[in-house]
Amino acid sequence: MIRINPNYPKLSSSYLFSEISRRVAAFKAQRTEAKVISLGVGDVTLPLTPTIVKAFRQAVEELGSAKSFRGYPPDLGFDFLREAIAENDFKACGVDISPDEIAISDGAKSDTANIQELFAGDIRIAVPDPVYPVYVDTNVMAGRTGSYRDGRYSGLIYLDCTEDNGFIPDPPKSRVDLIYLCFPNNPTGAVIDRARLTAWVDYARAAKALILYDAAYVSFIRDESIPCSIFEIPGARECAIEFRSFSKTAGFTGTRCAYTVVPKTCMAWDVDGKEHSLSAMWSRRQSTKLNGVSYPVQRAAAAVFTPEGRKETRGLSDYYLGNARLMRQKMDALGFSCIGGENSPYVWARVGGDSWSFFDKLLAMAAVVITPGSGFGRCGEGYVRMSAFNTRELTQEAIERIAKVAGDLQAS
Amino acid sequence: MIRINPNYPKLSSSYLFSEISRRVAAFKAQRTEAKVISLGVGDVTLPLTPTIVKAFRQAVEELGSAKSFRGYPPDLGFDFLREAIAENDFKACGVDISPDEIAISDGAKSDTANIQELFAGDIRIAVPDPVYPVYVDTNVMAGRTGSYRDGRYSGLIYLDCTEDNGFIPDPPKSRVDLIYLCFPNNPTGAVIDRARLTAWVDYARAAKALILYDAAYVSFIRDESIPCSIFEIPGARECAIEFRSFSKTAGFTGTRCAYTVVPKTCMAWDVDGKEHSLSAMWSRRQSTKLNGVSYPVQRAAAAVFTPEGRKETRGLSDYYLGNARLMRQKMDALGFSCIGGENSPYVWARVGGDSWSFFDKLLAMAAVVITPGSGFGRCGEGYVRMSAFNTRELTQEAIERIAKVAGDLQAS
Repeated sequence: MIRINPNYPKLSSSYLFSEISRRVAAFKAQRTEAKVISLGVGDVTLPLTPTIVKAFRQAVEELGSAKSFRGYPPDLGFDFLREAIAENDFKACGVDISPDEIAISDGAKSDTANIQELFAGDIRIAVPDPVYPVYVDTNVMAGRTGSYRDGRYSGLIYLDCTEDNGFIPDPPKSRVDLIYLCFPNNPTGAVIDRARLTAWVDYARAAKALILYDAAYVSFIRDESIPCSIFEIPGARECAIEFRSFSKTAGFTGTRCAYTVVPKTCMAWDVDGKEHSLSAMWSRRQSTKLNGVSYPVQRAAAAVFTPEGRKETRGLSDYYLGNARLMRQKMDALGFSCIGGENSPYVWARVGGDSWSFFDKLLAMAAVVITPGSGFGRCGEGYVRMSAFNTRELTQEAIERIAKVAGDLQAS
Repeated sequence: MIRINPNYPKLSSSYLFSEISRRVAAFKAQRTEAKVISLGVGDVTLPLTPTIVKAFRQAVEELGSAKSFRGYPPDLGFDFLREAIAENDFKACGVDISPDEIAISDGAKSDTANIQELFAGDIRIAVPDPVYPVYVDTNVMAGRTGSYRDGRYSGLIYLDCTEDNGFIPDPPKSRVDLIYLCFPNNPTGAVIDRARLTAWVDYARAAKALILYDAAYVSFIRDESIPCSIFEIPGARECAIEFRSFSKTAGFTGTRCAYTVVPKTCMAWDVDGKEHSLSAMWSRRQSTKLNGVSYPVQRAAAAVFTPEGRKETRGLSDYYLGNARLMRQKMDALGFSCIGGENSPYVWARVGGDSWSFFDKLLAMAAVVITPGSGFGRCGEGYVRMSAFNTRELTQEAIERIAKVAGDLQAS
């Protein structure tokens, strides 16, 4: 008899974004005249820029001609893209990462989901709270947790991110082996400074632990004192893996391209204490389970690093940062305590009470959708996430609507 | 201390295609004048057809315009593609599969690699020998096997495919829970008839086992008596999952698109005997670990099902089948015992002795590359796989070169 993975039924069934969709659909069915504006899901709205479209289209044409046709892409990506990334995203920032330490993929979601396969079943894992659910769910599926109760899985170490620590967790007192960090943070918009990131790298090196550093939102950093890569921190090449994506950097949510950096110097150990290269293991994992990323998509991604591509995509993040600034200023002015919205496309606002009630009230009173913070973990209760990825016009209209009902929202 | 997945070191280090590349590179370095022809890797050579290029390019343009821009694709694929597949690949063949039983992905390699995550760690797994290595390696990585010895992993049930059974295994006497089948077969080119496939479906239903049916080469079937889908067999909707790909059907090896069919009626059980929907589990797995397939790629795939797309892509498989026929006829004429090359792009030829010696001799004498059968498993020893995916001209030249040296090859 074919038996199921016994860990799947442990998964908390309430999936945040499907619950939001359900409530929005119910509202629309009742209030057919309402024009709903979403500051909810973190999906981009601006189109691909001209330089990227041109490269993408040209590569499609190449596949249509016998002379320039290409079959299976290299498992870890084409050299032209790996070299452009090493040069522009790292060397230009003074960070020593070589092209063969970069593995191209179809998304940072896939990579942050799959990376846990490289590790033993009984390691101790630390995740922030609030957290991007993929880090947690993939470890649940792999059997590294117990059951779900009161918003948490037993067996994981949760790192509380609260106003007290500026939403940036410090290394725990207890021993952990694997640590998920994400900066600029999803959902809070918090950014980590060099000193606190150094503390994490020092902790990891001392404990022979590994940091999984999700830098999907790095293109929104404007403050030069904030590290863009964990590899700016001395010693990080020995204890960290970094995830990056073209989704938010260049509007690739519908195009699909990302990459993961596994330094050659990054090791893990077997039960006999023998050292193993995580770079070799990731390469083995990817070449066994994938056939690489679509050639035209990789050409489109490489165009991001041309002078025109850089200018155009900088324009995309500038635009969304403009939305974020508007939201943050208005929410501050209305008396909500906020972080994010600077160096980040997300504003994290304290609304008090419970997040879902605020969600329901805001939808009913203003037809505006936000994401309830409690959907990201217990420490998210009482907060909401607002996303800067809508258009300027709709962002503006949404915050004006919020301003109009703010008194009622806070009073009720 | 971060510890590794203890199963990775079990993986047999000799990866077939990298070993081939190594030997070919060494040969080229010595014999710089030689013009090497590869009948080795199963990668296509003909370009994407005009109708597909047009749809692909138009979708790229859509992403470049604010009005038609699209962000994250649906996790399981766009309805336009799922509906076109249900209609053309199934309904038109009298097979009852609905669009919501079809999940789009970036490749059949990914899907056949990932599907094992849905199952318990201690199920009994049967794989054919010779076998596509992905089925085996992904179960090794997941800890479902013991160590590797004499070309086999302990803990797996190997189904010998030999001349005696026409390279088509029969259901085993012992109980197994999960069965990997691939028809038209890679590497042997064998096809399964309705009666023998029915025997497998009957076995699976009686044992409450599950068949994973890899039909990536289905577009090469010309004999109408051969089933194109396992779902043509009564009862298969209760006990089978089918994998299909656009790679060989439409030249998508560099474009990346495939799909997996998990019928709503296909169940697995937990330790308490409770039934679980594999369709729901696959959907949960995919939506947790992926963000869908590139929009332009899905538009390109949908164009395969237009009247022009169908005609053009039929032309692609006709062309490769022409190569296969040439190879098969010549090898037969030279006195090699062969199967495949009809309803399949692969010819499987008995060369006697050991496969790697034949590989080396053929490379040295004729500068022709084939794939040693032993690389696919113990039962592949003494055979080689020849692939029909090169151009007509080079295929022709390769078989002429083989003919010239055939006497020496067989004598030595």
